[in-house]
Amino acid sequence: MTHNDTIVALATPAGAGAIAIVRLSGDKAIEIASGVFHSISGKKLQQQKSHTVHLGHIKDGDRVIDEVLATVFKDPHSYTGENVVEFSCHGSNYIQQEIIQLCLRKGCRMAQAGEFTLRAFLNGKMDLSQAEAVADLIASDSAASHQLAIQQMRGGFSSEIQRLREELLNFASLIELELDFAEEDVEFANRDEFKQLLTRISNVLKRLIDSFATGNVLKHGIPVAIVGEPNVGKSTLLNALLNEERAIVSDIAGTTRDSIEDEITIGGVGFRFIDTAGIRETQDKIEGMGIQRTFEKMEQAQVVIFLLEAHKFLGQGEDVKLEIAKVQHKFPQKAHLVVVNKIDSISEEEGKQLDVNLSAVEGSHSLLLSAKTGEGIEELKSSLLEFVNTGILENNNVVISNTRHYDALLKALEEINKVQEGLDSGLSGDLLAIDIRQALYHFGEITGEISNDELLGNIFANFCIGK
Amino acid sequence: MTHNDTIVALATPAGAGAIAIVRLSGDKAIEIASGVFHSISGKKLQQQKSHTVHLGHIKDGDRVIDEVLATVFKDPHSYTGENVVEFSCHGSNYIQQEIIQLCLRKGCRMAQAGEFTLRAFLNGKMDLSQAEAVADLIASDSAASHQLAIQQMRGGFSSEIQRLREELLNFASLIELELDFAEEDVEFANRDEFKQLLTRISNVLKRLIDSFATGNVLKHGIPVAIVGEPNVGKSTLLNALLNEERAIVSDIAGTTRDSIEDEITIGGVGFRFIDTAGIRETQDKIEGMGIQRTFEKMEQAQVVIFLLEAHKFLGQGEDVKLEIAKVQHKFPQKAHLVVVNKIDSISEEEGKQLDVNLSAVEGSHSLLLSAKTGEGIEELKSSLLEFVNTGILENNNVVISNTRHYDALLKALEEINKVQEGLDSGLSGDLLAIDIRQALYHFGEITGEISNDELLGNIFANFCIGK
Repeated sequence: MTHNDTIVALATPAGAGAIAIVRLSGDKAIEIASGVFHSISGKKLQQQKSHTVHLGHIKDGDRVIDEVLATVFKDPHSYTGENVVEFSCHGSNYIQQEIIQLCLRKGCRMAQAGEFTLRAFLNGKMDLSQAEAVADLIASDSAASHQLAIQQMRGGFSSEIQRLREELLNFASLIELELDFAEEDVEFANRDEFKQLLTRISNVLKRLIDSFATGNVLKHGIPVAIVGEPNVGKSTLLNALLNEERAIVSDIAGTTRDSIEDEITIGGVGFRFIDTAGIRETQDKIEGMGIQRTFEKMEQAQVVIFLLEAHKFLGQGEDVKLEIAKVQHKFPQKAHLVVVNKIDSISEEEGKQLDVNLSAVEGSHSLLLSAKTGEGIEELKSSLLEFVNTGILENNNVVISNTRHYDALLKALEEINKVQEGLDSGLSGDLLAIDIRQALYHFGEITGEISNDELLGNIFANFCIGK
Repeated sequence: MTHNDTIVALATPAGAGAIAIVRLSGDKAIEIASGVFHSISGKKLQQQKSHTVHLGHIKDGDRVIDEVLATVFKDPHSYTGENVVEFSCHGSNYIQQEIIQLCLRKGCRMAQAGEFTLRAFLNGKMDLSQAEAVADLIASDSAASHQLAIQQMRGGFSSEIQRLREELLNFASLIELELDFAEEDVEFANRDEFKQLLTRISNVLKRLIDSFATGNVLKHGIPVAIVGEPNVGKSTLLNALLNEERAIVSDIAGTTRDSIEDEITIGGVGFRFIDTAGIRETQDKIEGMGIQRTFEKMEQAQVVIFLLEAHKFLGQGEDVKLEIAKVQHKFPQKAHLVVVNKIDSISEEEGKQLDVNLSAVEGSHSLLLSAKTGEGIEELKSSLLEFVNTGILENNNVVISNTRHYDALLKALEEINKVQEGLDSGLSGDLLAIDIRQALYHFGEITGEISNDELLGNIFANFCIGK
């Protein structure tokens, strides 16, 4: 990529709509836009102030392509930090393409995925973790993933890293300065203060690293395995949670032909439901294989729901308890929840028996509900939310949700630990300095002070074109 | 609909993208927007000039929903003629919905389909035919349909109607004035000049009415029936015209399971291809029914292409000629084109024989080509374009393409004819005046001087929400 040419792309979603936006960015953005845009006022875009909007026509020679609004942003007061022009045109596919083609003929180049944001990063408008948050923000589909992205985009996380990095850099300089005066055996860097700083850094890193587990599930949704036989009411339950008729529901077992694996937002948090067959029914010769597949699916889950039919649980309670116990034994670290469905179809007497049976199931929360009438659905939602530490978001804690950041933080912590050990064991300044530099390197990777084309390429390839 | 409240809608296409625009319009648009938008500069949107853009955050209480650009347009200098604010936000579905929901809670109402443009019409920013052109423009998918819409939106057609209407209105007033002085037998309206005007109006109306045939096909694409047996190369031909591998093509007859009915743009004009089975193969007892269905499909077409395989035409030339003759006889008014495919598979000698056979086919253009090698494809494109009077667009003639306008023009012409006849037969002024008023009424229907809620409802129901 070269970064001094002028790029163009559709910035709004593909397809026809009322309005579409074609965006140009680069040294010559205003000049090129002005060449195709004929303002009603007669004034050239070059003469206009930044952040102003102008009505006019885009023409290819004499041919009018569209009546548009042109917005001018002047370097450095734009998203990319470059000259930017946005054409707000009528949202026909044909017009979008004609305007882009015209800009290409007049000297623009088609923007690559994420190139507008890449330029914003390269021009110092945002650091790398903020740029990454832009893509997360566009992909956000729940209150939780949205808040994580907003928090990261506003720099809450990287400014903390940035501060620690500067303090560490300061000590590194002092220690390296000592090396220049090695023969005089002076100590510019106060070792006690340095140890305190390292402890502080180490605590922050540990807190951020620990937050990743939560951040990651909040970003991608919490995986929930539903263990349930056909016709136990999985589709009805998901519909009840979703509050709309998403799946076709009928009394015939196996009505749901497509997988019920789907994402539902509860209390602003995404839950991904994974359909598993359970481990009881696989009693033929390929039993081992079937159970293996079910276990693999459960492996991905954070919560396991055993969905049972009230009548069946009354009749075959022992079998069910055995299955639950097996799964609990195999996955002791997962949250287990026993949900008994269709309680609208049993008598009061049977209900009491159910309670007795359920109390005999150990190590699991249990819930009675009717997906059909909606009774108990709110309780299920609350139970699911209890498995997530949403408090971490509410208290405005900094949470990381990006695997790349997680890796860099782990590596930084490792180096910080080495420095601490080195200090304790009286390691020489030149060797200490190497470990400190390594830690600084990993901090810099997160915010983008340290970057390379390959890293940038990987990050921005996941963006959409036009951002 | 009430039109003094403030409406809100997503203006960009649905779905995730780099940027989305949420648009507010109405008396309180700036006030409501200002209540949720916190400018970086600290200035309120009310204090900002029209046509300026401001960076800030949309907040719901303390919760940041997004960092956005807010553009302010002040009454009457906006699309709708009202106060308008456009929020340019990150294009996540979640954010779009959160911003719209927030605006609804703060006093906006969800916009109905086309309501922004309806308001533009009601506030005198455009006449009705221009408003209709906005929807056509967004739907335009070829150079021809785009140019028709642009021309209509820029008012070329309605300004002509408007001018004639005013001249006619002038005469109507004079004639009605004469009625007030009926006893004095004066003539304010010069009858010769009036007759000249009526002839002029009549000529313009006839020209516009005639242009509808062209306008309509340019807008909706030209229907072309392809008569061809399985495996004659229909899919390959369409691919060659389309220049890409659209349909799966193989040597097995009947590979194309889906209908080949599709639209292809050639030279900026859309062509809709209609697959017909031909009328030869239906020789069993349901023959009549089969032929009937084929004829019905041909009925919709403006051009009929007989697609033949070179070898088969050499062998069964007489059968083919008979079929062509039958179709020509049934549809003498349609353009007929005989296309012989797979000429790459025949010898030079056979080629000569083909020419002889083709020359014996009367009343049809004929063409040899190979869809596989591409030979002759350009000639076919030229032939298809010859069937369309694209010149009518190139010469910047006013062309109508809207059925509603066509109807109104026909009715207006009818009334003008009545007035002409009345003048010739010395009809009394009061009766003349009635017919003139009727003609004026139909003129007014086109531009919207005459409108009612039902008419407006019908027109704007076809718009997308957000326009």
